[in-house]
Amino acid sequence: MDNMKDYIFTFSTKPIAIKAGKNICLMNEADVREMGLNPFERVQLINPKNNKKIVTVIDISQNKLLKEKEIGLFFDVQEKLGIKKGTQQIKATPMGRPKSIEYIKKKMNKKKLTFEEMQAIVQDISENKLSEIEVSAFVSSVYINGFDLEETVSMTKALIGSGQKLVIPGTVVDKHSIGGVNGRVTMVLVPIIAEAGLKIPKTSSRSITSAAGTADAMEVLANVSLTIAQIKKITQKIGGVIAWGGAVELAPADDKIIKIEHPLSLDPEGQVIASVMAKKESVSSKFVVIDLPVGKEVKVKTREQATSMAKKFIEVGKAVDIKVEALITNGDEPSGPAFGPALEARHALEVLEGKVFDNMAQKAVELAGTLLELSEKAPKEKGYLKAKEILESGKALKKMKEIINAQGKKIDESKKVPWAKFSHDVKSTQAGSISQLDVKGLTLMARIAGAPVDKEAGVLLNSEEGQKIKKGDKLMTIYSNNKRRLEAARDYLHKNPIIQMERVILEKIE
Amino acid sequence: MDNMKDYIFTFSTKPIAIKAGKNICLMNEADVREMGLNPFERVQLINPKNNKKIVTVIDISQNKLLKEKEIGLFFDVQEKLGIKKGTQQIKATPMGRPKSIEYIKKKMNKKKLTFEEMQAIVQDISENKLSEIEVSAFVSSVYINGFDLEETVSMTKALIGSGQKLVIPGTVVDKHSIGGVNGRVTMVLVPIIAEAGLKIPKTSSRSITSAAGTADAMEVLANVSLTIAQIKKITQKIGGVIAWGGAVELAPADDKIIKIEHPLSLDPEGQVIASVMAKKESVSSKFVVIDLPVGKEVKVKTREQATSMAKKFIEVGKAVDIKVEALITNGDEPSGPAFGPALEARHALEVLEGKVFDNMAQKAVELAGTLLELSEKAPKEKGYLKAKEILESGKALKKMKEIINAQGKKIDESKKVPWAKFSHDVKSTQAGSISQLDVKGLTLMARIAGAPVDKEAGVLLNSEEGQKIKKGDKLMTIYSNNKRRLEAARDYLHKNPIIQMERVILEKIE
Repeated sequence: MDNMKDYIFTFSTKPIAIKAGKNICLMNEADVREMGLNPFERVQLINPKNNKKIVTVIDISQNKLLKEKEIGLFFDVQEKLGIKKGTQQIKATPMGRPKSIEYIKKKMNKKKLTFEEMQAIVQDISENKLSEIEVSAFVSSVYINGFDLEETVSMTKALIGSGQKLVIPGTVVDKHSIGGVNGRVTMVLVPIIAEAGLKIPKTSSRSITSAAGTADAMEVLANVSLTIAQIKKITQKIGGVIAWGGAVELAPADDKIIKIEHPLSLDPEGQVIASVMAKKESVSSKFVVIDLPVGKEVKVKTREQATSMAKKFIEVGKAVDIKVEALITNGDEPSGPAFGPALEARHALEVLEGKVFDNMAQKAVELAGTLLELSEKAPKEKGYLKAKEILESGKALKKMKEIINAQGKKIDESKKVPWAKFSHDVKSTQAGSISQLDVKGLTLMARIAGAPVDKEAGVLLNSEEGQKIKKGDKLMTIYSNNKRRLEAARDYLHKNPIIQMERVILEKIE
Repeated sequence: MDNMKDYIFTFSTKPIAIKAGKNICLMNEADVREMGLNPFERVQLINPKNNKKIVTVIDISQNKLLKEKEIGLFFDVQEKLGIKKGTQQIKATPMGRPKSIEYIKKKMNKKKLTFEEMQAIVQDISENKLSEIEVSAFVSSVYINGFDLEETVSMTKALIGSGQKLVIPGTVVDKHSIGGVNGRVTMVLVPIIAEAGLKIPKTSSRSITSAAGTADAMEVLANVSLTIAQIKKITQKIGGVIAWGGAVELAPADDKIIKIEHPLSLDPEGQVIASVMAKKESVSSKFVVIDLPVGKEVKVKTREQATSMAKKFIEVGKAVDIKVEALITNGDEPSGPAFGPALEARHALEVLEGKVFDNMAQKAVELAGTLLELSEKAPKEKGYLKAKEILESGKALKKMKEIINAQGKKIDESKKVPWAKFSHDVKSTQAGSISQLDVKGLTLMARIAGAPVDKEAGVLLNSEEGQKIKKGDKLMTIYSNNKRRLEAARDYLHKNPIIQMERVILEKIE
């Protein structure tokens, strides 16, 4: 509706003391119609006092609280227009649709997008020019129609172009895990890598469906809400950092896309790869290792899918000058015994303290070794040994304590991590051999017990797959600060086959 | 996250004096995280004073205006919770995803939806339980993956079940046009039908991309914002009504779906058919005629597409006990000479007054005749003649005046319809024969001149396809109340091939 541009309407502003985080204004439907517009179309608002302008999407207020010719402006829109408190007159002109909507429609129509088109979409998302409805239509069409490799590269480059870049002197490396479940590999890997002289400004997520995200577990030990400046400073000084990615705005468009993907759990492969690689590029990574757990209950279900995804990561890496290696790992068995923020944080510290060396520690050392080889800090085939040596020497633990201190220390020893108020030991009612531990079921149990909101809640396994068990042996302990939740988790365990046993002794006399 | 249900959090309400028209609440991101939730997930709010409950989608406020543990509530949410002015404590518990989200995901994964699943989606949309992001994902997936006939019937029935029903004694009939452009067939057809003794409670739309919708043109003559009760009363008394559909809430879910479809101009065939048929059923229609204009610039591009769509309308009609007939019409040529609300209203009155009988009048009489035959008010093959007789007798005009009076009269004679302040006659610069009139271009010209906001603005053709033209003949007149817009429309005409001529006299001497 570009042809409406020279119609100018005048409104009285009605301030709304809330920051909406998006460029919307509230209007009466009758006023919208009079402008020749429909809800969710756009107006440009101009403050006649200072000529400041902003394009907003129209949302409808159906009540009489907005009088005729009143426009409701959220705090952030008022701020952008330089409107002080109270009411004033403002000019509004109908605007056409941004070009990017045409490109979204193109993707819906199963056509391939060019780099320029992808860039227009990403730019309009990061500048809040597209509404949530439009971004949702975009991610839905990417989910349904997919990106080919070229489009994935275009999306990666578009995301890189839209965000900030963190420049850190030295060799920056990174690690990313696609849909792992438990075990804080990152908290063991980062100090090993930093100790080896590389730079690793790791940003991690909080839990969405798991019992804890790395950010949740690290938060038990230190502050994780760091600014870009803090991440840069700590990485430069100490070599590594483990921050919550949600607090930094390295890739605003990507953050917005991910927020829209959550409600429907959309994770279109091309978008996931572009999102990961753009974030790695934005912190100047040169070498990246990707952990791809494969299993029935994790994001990547088959070896074939993992191999195909790994190849795409490598190809996209080439296009943005990042050397990528991807490791396919077993996502069917638990990565370490802990499920829940404090339990997982304690376990990571125990690995660093040399108290345990299990499959989680093994994975951390292998991934770290791959990074050491990629960056030529270790010769071919020697990365694993070098990483293990750093871990066993206690230097990784010392480095982790430096990182914890730099981020704002809460706890830096495994024995000081607090335990939940209530716990329950689960004992075997029969002898046998553990044939399977259901990772998804354990996760859900930990969440029922209260994780990740209740930081100390969760499940700690005392058994692993293949292990022989006597009747009465402790299989696991459930922790919670809430008795009812502890009961609910026990109840869930009784009703679901979380631990499957093959009985080795079959004796039954009737 | 059903497992979070027995966590109860307490918030202080912060009233927002705006009706949002959807069930959302505003919270700080930190509070959302503490509840173990993500933005766009759901909380159930409970007012401890009266136990009133409502499930809301969480929207994030990123500023400091909402203090920790404060929750921003829009006016309509406050109302549903029975919260009086000011601040009070409120309980919030995290909620799981509604089942309908799973069904939306199913459609995204190219699977077929059952009636029960469709019903769950429609019900959650009409009860505001799905966010705009989720509804957008739904319409996007229907656009991309489509509905088969069975799904279209399910959607129709689900929409019918979600809305109100208008019961009118007598034989109720209706007419619907899919994506026509100009010419108010409805304003000629409705009085003919009402005069024939049938009931036609017609609800029409406003313009979205055309120069005028029927509601815009009718509004020049009478009030069109009628309540359901008014529509019922006028139809019972007079036989017909021409109201704006946007003001009645016959199908709330459908209205919401259509609002979400607008920003991306999505019009998935199955959804369009379900939407039309559900609306017809909700006013108790027994016989419906569908006008399907086919043309390069209208919604339906080919005869094949129109035939297939017509068959689906008929089949869906059978499933909900409505007898449907569909007429495929020519969408490439203008339907009458007028583009713009007042111009189209005047032209419709002129047809009723017997001053003109052109292709628009012809179409109205044919569609009316089809309805008369369907409802057995006229024998087979005699519907057209009966409809034309009613028109020519002046009884349709008399009936139209009754309808205008009943709706709230503004004008009821063509000569009283006001003209725009400024006009410009476009004259032919050459002799020839008009080979094509570009309907889309004429529409855009009318919009540039100010239609539909400027009710009197638009274009009035003085020529038709195939007509022989002498140099200097008047081809059309442009109308506007704004001189700059008139100039802009002229400019657009000069730069675009709106009228294409074949020169009959080719004489050129060099």
